[in-house]
Amino acid sequence: MATVPPVPETRVLAVASHVRTTLQYVGNKVAVFVLQSMGCDVAALNTVQFSNHTGYQQWKGSRVTAQEIEDLYEGLKQSYLDDFDMMLSGYIPGAEAVTAVGKIAKELKEKTKETPGKFFWVLDPVMGDNGRIYVAEDVVPAYKSLLSSADLILPNQFEAELLSGIQIKDMESLTHAIQVLHDTHRIPHIVITSVNLSAPDHPDSHLSVVGSSMTSTGKARLFKIVFPAIDCYFSGTGDMFGALIVTRMREAVSQVPGLGDKPNWLSDDSTPTLELPLARAAEKVLASMHELLSKTSQGMTAIVERTRHDMTEAEKADQKKLQLVKSKGAELQLVRNLDCLRNPAIEFRAKEM
Amino acid sequence: MATVPPVPETRVLAVASHVRTTLQYVGNKVAVFVLQSMGCDVAALNTVQFSNHTGYQQWKGSRVTAQEIEDLYEGLKQSYLDDFDMMLSGYIPGAEAVTAVGKIAKELKEKTKETPGKFFWVLDPVMGDNGRIYVAEDVVPAYKSLLSSADLILPNQFEAELLSGIQIKDMESLTHAIQVLHDTHRIPHIVITSVNLSAPDHPDSHLSVVGSSMTSTGKARLFKIVFPAIDCYFSGTGDMFGALIVTRMREAVSQVPGLGDKPNWLSDDSTPTLELPLARAAEKVLASMHELLSKTSQGMTAIVERTRHDMTEAEKADQKKLQLVKSKGAELQLVRNLDCLRNPAIEFRAKEM
Repeated sequence: MATVPPVPETRVLAVASHVRTTLQYVGNKVAVFVLQSMGCDVAALNTVQFSNHTGYQQWKGSRVTAQEIEDLYEGLKQSYLDDFDMMLSGYIPGAEAVTAVGKIAKELKEKTKETPGKFFWVLDPVMGDNGRIYVAEDVVPAYKSLLSSADLILPNQFEAELLSGIQIKDMESLTHAIQVLHDTHRIPHIVITSVNLSAPDHPDSHLSVVGSSMTSTGKARLFKIVFPAIDCYFSGTGDMFGALIVTRMREAVSQVPGLGDKPNWLSDDSTPTLELPLARAAEKVLASMHELLSKTSQGMTAIVERTRHDMTEAEKADQKKLQLVKSKGAELQLVRNLDCLRNPAIEFRAKEM
Repeated sequence: MATVPPVPETRVLAVASHVRTTLQYVGNKVAVFVLQSMGCDVAALNTVQFSNHTGYQQWKGSRVTAQEIEDLYEGLKQSYLDDFDMMLSGYIPGAEAVTAVGKIAKELKEKTKETPGKFFWVLDPVMGDNGRIYVAEDVVPAYKSLLSSADLILPNQFEAELLSGIQIKDMESLTHAIQVLHDTHRIPHIVITSVNLSAPDHPDSHLSVVGSSMTSTGKARLFKIVFPAIDCYFSGTGDMFGALIVTRMREAVSQVPGLGDKPNWLSDDSTPTLELPLARAAEKVLASMHELLSKTSQGMTAIVERTRHDMTEAEKADQKKLQLVKSKGAELQLVRNLDCLRNPAIEFRAKEM
């Protein structure tokens, strides 16, 4: 085991949903474990508390209200536990709660205005996927009004469309959407996760992420990383991506003298695109993701078989019950694979666009 | 980083209190992180949900009721997530909740009665310390009635008195208490944590743990590990001890062919005391504890200074606020010191008594 954690000392406020009592690594449970395993001190602010419905047939989540979010944060402040270096925000159900989280981020920014770079907000604007919104409609404008305070945003392809107003149908419109986001909201760093567009430089079975850190004049510096898709559903991948990019961005920035003291950790205009900390961070994140998803996929069959072994014939014939077993197999196999998180082998390199 | 986790694949149900939103590693937050870092899959069943009181001046915890504990467990069962190898139970406030947790343990035992050794319950009977009970009085008989279902119990010196009815004033009465616990409740494995008794073989600035795994006829096989006390208050040490002994016991048992299939993981009568898995596990646990507490103690001043730096003079003069800052410094420094957990150097060896 490496004696030195991958990241310098980092205190992170992680805002996301939380599954109260299950083995499943979803939402903040994934994010918190990944952040801690990479060496971050984490305060978890959970936006949803799931608990078991008394009918036993389902898990019932109760949303934390905007007021509760404010109270919880006030509690951290009162106990002198608000000295955060970074914040990662994920799934937040409801516009008021989004606004409350934005208020926290703005306050943390304001507190460090004399010391640029001291606080960095990674915002995953979770709203939907594949053309379908799965939050309330008013969450979209709530996120839009916060974008100018974020340092790095992590929309998927559909969320990038919602935020930029640009329909993404090819790489050209995708890069246009990124430039619009830089222009309109002055977002310093953008990563579009899981881009599923054909391109001449890779087979259709591959996905890509496209990222950019803007120049001092707001011009996009675009890179792309192509990686093979794993044909399998996993839960918690977005949360894992967010937690990993937080740590790897922090690590990459700490390796460039003085960069951590610059506003928004924005590299000099002379920095070649492929040497941008964001590009180097994204390479490591994707390496970890690919290794961990491969391991999870390999272990899935054994978990499903082991669980089916203890089921009655009637249970095995029940599609709903089989679905539960599949969900169990789709949990990210994090705890036995810390190596994938901390020391991944980089296989997929960033390319300039 | 070691590529292989210290323990074989292990699914653990961890029952303890939970701090909902704070940086502090207390209760199940400590236990879950330590278990995960050692390679265990963990389902956390939290007996207390702390949240911030709207008055901001304190954290308010709400107890989970016995019914809620049963419901949460029922939910795990319905989702086929109850295939646990081990269970660790810690702080449970209230006799009814203790009984509900005991019912879960008994059910998990019953489920594996055809496959001895398949389920192992580590019970930390949290009731009090230094002569003072800090749970409801009826928690004591509730624990007593469960002892015969536990595989390993982790009372401190005072809790061992409460459970055995023997007043512990020296090493002789301590070992008598252990024999009584073996005799009365057939508890296979016992570790008395933090024994603070003078003994001719160590200076008074040292503490010890005393453990025993009984023979087939219920006779204690006693060992002692002496270690230097660190003069400092830390929070969460009991939870850390519990989580570490779960993993190290599992590891030590897995290294003895066939032992994992024996009822209660009880070693042959021919096994020398110092080769008992419990003795070997306890050595590793204490090594980890000592390294981690030393690191925490070293880092404490810097945390307190850094926090004081941001305080106003009025705040610095407020004893209550200074206490909050001290609490912050007393948090176990877990995330940056995974090495202490996974690869501790064993300094303090078990001795036969």
